[in-house]
Amino acid sequence: MTIASRLVIDYRNATDVAVGEHGVSAADIDSVKDLVASEHERIVREHAEGIQRWQDLPDNTELADEIAAFAAEARETYTDFILIGIGGSSLGAIATIMALTHPYRNWLPAERRNGPRIFILDNPDPEKVAATLDTVNLETTLVNVISKSRQTAETAANFLGVRDALIKAVGEEQARKQIVATTDPESGLLRQLSNEEGYRTFPVPPGVDGRQTVLSAVGLIPAALAGIDIHQLLAGAAAMRERASSPDVRENPAYLLAALAVLADTKHDKAMLVTMPYADALFGISDWFRQLWAESLGKKLSVDNEVVFAGQTPIKALGAIDQHSQIQLYTEGPNDKLIQLISVASYRDSVSIPTPPASVPELSYFEGGELGQLLDRERLATAWALTKAERPNLTITVPTIDAAIIGEFFYLLQLQTVMAGALYRVNPFGQPGVEAGKNATYALMGRSGYEDLKDELLSTPDNADAYLNRP
Amino acid sequence: MTIASRLVIDYRNATDVAVGEHGVSAADIDSVKDLVASEHERIVREHAEGIQRWQDLPDNTELADEIAAFAAEARETYTDFILIGIGGSSLGAIATIMALTHPYRNWLPAERRNGPRIFILDNPDPEKVAATLDTVNLETTLVNVISKSRQTAETAANFLGVRDALIKAVGEEQARKQIVATTDPESGLLRQLSNEEGYRTFPVPPGVDGRQTVLSAVGLIPAALAGIDIHQLLAGAAAMRERASSPDVRENPAYLLAALAVLADTKHDKAMLVTMPYADALFGISDWFRQLWAESLGKKLSVDNEVVFAGQTPIKALGAIDQHSQIQLYTEGPNDKLIQLISVASYRDSVSIPTPPASVPELSYFEGGELGQLLDRERLATAWALTKAERPNLTITVPTIDAAIIGEFFYLLQLQTVMAGALYRVNPFGQPGVEAGKNATYALMGRSGYEDLKDELLSTPDNADAYLNRP
Repeated sequence: MTIASRLVIDYRNATDVAVGEHGVSAADIDSVKDLVASEHERIVREHAEGIQRWQDLPDNTELADEIAAFAAEARETYTDFILIGIGGSSLGAIATIMALTHPYRNWLPAERRNGPRIFILDNPDPEKVAATLDTVNLETTLVNVISKSRQTAETAANFLGVRDALIKAVGEEQARKQIVATTDPESGLLRQLSNEEGYRTFPVPPGVDGRQTVLSAVGLIPAALAGIDIHQLLAGAAAMRERASSPDVRENPAYLLAALAVLADTKHDKAMLVTMPYADALFGISDWFRQLWAESLGKKLSVDNEVVFAGQTPIKALGAIDQHSQIQLYTEGPNDKLIQLISVASYRDSVSIPTPPASVPELSYFEGGELGQLLDRERLATAWALTKAERPNLTITVPTIDAAIIGEFFYLLQLQTVMAGALYRVNPFGQPGVEAGKNATYALMGRSGYEDLKDELLSTPDNADAYLNRP
Repeated sequence: MTIASRLVIDYRNATDVAVGEHGVSAADIDSVKDLVASEHERIVREHAEGIQRWQDLPDNTELADEIAAFAAEARETYTDFILIGIGGSSLGAIATIMALTHPYRNWLPAERRNGPRIFILDNPDPEKVAATLDTVNLETTLVNVISKSRQTAETAANFLGVRDALIKAVGEEQARKQIVATTDPESGLLRQLSNEEGYRTFPVPPGVDGRQTVLSAVGLIPAALAGIDIHQLLAGAAAMRERASSPDVRENPAYLLAALAVLADTKHDKAMLVTMPYADALFGISDWFRQLWAESLGKKLSVDNEVVFAGQTPIKALGAIDQHSQIQLYTEGPNDKLIQLISVASYRDSVSIPTPPASVPELSYFEGGELGQLLDRERLATAWALTKAERPNLTITVPTIDAAIIGEFFYLLQLQTVMAGALYRVNPFGQPGVEAGKNATYALMGRSGYEDLKDELLSTPDNADAYLNRP
């Protein structure tokens, strides 16, 4: 199924024409034109060499067929679905489900839900995990554990707990049937356990970072369980891939957005990139992108091994709510942000604003109004007010919210991030900076091989105190 | 009821001793010591003069009695509760309810919920509003509209829609009984309408900004409807008020936190303040504080009318989830943040980690472990790793999560914000920067008196286009 891209980008308010010295100039964009073109060639070459394999995910319609068939049956069988995964293993699913299902889906009657209730166990928060185990009916719960290796401590701990509860509720043999693992096809702890216990498995694609897996089985299984048309998700991503194939920074929407953001940071001191959709349903996209942008670009070393401490801080916001929270700061505080608004041309519901009582003529301007119209005009008014205060901003408009549009966003923002890495001269893959903290957790949990680190950690009296005085 | 404060603050890792030049030094703190003391005197004096009246809210136990009695009856009468309010009128209630009730409260069976299901209509998002009206049983729904004046367009529009639906479902007379208004005791559109239609009303306290109303009827009514002990909330706030009464920057926890944050920004280029609790339940506090900090401090003009563009950008984060999203950037990206971690000494639930299968000895370190222990050690490990990378951070520890602790947070963070305003030399009250956008919305919605502004807005061809081509 081939469809066309429908996203529209308006970046006028991010330029010097609209906001003076705080905006990106045509000369700025020209200054990276050649670099963008040559980095495009590198990305194409790397893709041909088997790197950048995330770009192939939209083509995997066979996998989507398999997942859709699996999910169709599971939607009939199970009342509850628990996803166990964190970071790249959960944020894509949350974004997709938030965008494309009823906002109160979990408490709709079963016949209106089109599938089981969905619970995300990302954090190893005992209060949330206990509440989840207390709420689901384990006899009819499908568990999807997602981990490339299952080294991730949070996912491993949550999975051990849920697996144990499941075994207690339905017995060991049945429990194995209610667990599906999304993991590396060949190696890793979860692969090993899946083989031993006979879980059904789906692959985490090799050569793809965790934060790029939303269009793989990692993101597609929970989406399909929620009744989402995953083929449309992939088709939308493919449409954006087609559209974003030019090496020209002005023609390629992903490269244009990358250039605007990086130039805003490096030439105009916009250390933060705010993503602010005007739709509750799109807030998850903003949160998913927040991980992608931060973890890909926040790097100490450049590709040439120079110390650069690169990266722009992504901020998730929501219009119009944050007009009553952050816009005061965005308008009058330090001019240190580029703000990307997301606009919805046509919401999926229409709610008219009734005629106000005659006694409050101050509200008569609502006469004949509609909520989506109000929300959209708030967006336009905010863009105008930001621009008037010389705060650079741009607007991405979607015709409406559907699976294909969400697929477009996923592809667009991933390619934007890869090109932004190139412009910062950092490697957008990997997350070397989190190793220290991970190792420290292992050390504090008493994992063997980490004894020296534990000693180092507890050599500070206050750390030792905090460690010893906790349960 | 008098109780003692139980929050513990450890700011060692925010100092130069721990993170070198990126940390606040003893000399930095000394440099604001006198200013803090004199600003403290000013705040005390203003309070005596009837300004700073938010400080009195913890004393209003009579109001709390009235609300508790109202809520006790309403919890028996209604199956559903809709709060209509935005910004300061909803964020406090969300934070309180998220912290102190079951994470899946709305879909617990009625007998376990202790009160109606709770729906927050903050955004005028037609998809969310339609879904809400589609989900509640209007015949047994209590509506609480919260607005000082009811000029707020989002709240007015949402209220007109819900009121109309209610009238259609139960008739005009009954609808009036199911609406409770929290508004100015004397004036404003909502006061006027409440008087005309005979709604039960509770006061938005005069002389208090919207973002300081969490301990007034604004925040207490929804909390009480959710079954929360609002007297404990107030008692916790009073305990913190008692503790935070010293003029000494090192003795007063609110002033200390204010000084650390502002000094980190103004002397060490930490333009962002991250609040990262290690508990899903405390994420709402982080979001509530995000409004407070941004709207209070993000100011163009100083109290002396100099252009200062002040303000530090607050960021909401969640541990351990954001270790898999933001910590890479926080550790290796620009060193431009102060990170306040919130630690929970004892979670309200305990979930043991079962013994891992013998076939995965790599996980044997979990033996005898517990989820809360893991989560807390992740926090300690992250603080250590941040410190090692010279990223300033501090930790606020709570013994557990209960109503009094949430009250302590509310008071502490409000006083911290007021003192931060003093250190930035800005007025922490008011939000002059949002007027332009509000007026532009009125203009685009066709409100009379805003015709010239509408002409100005639509004079840009692209704006006119965006305006005309939407429904």
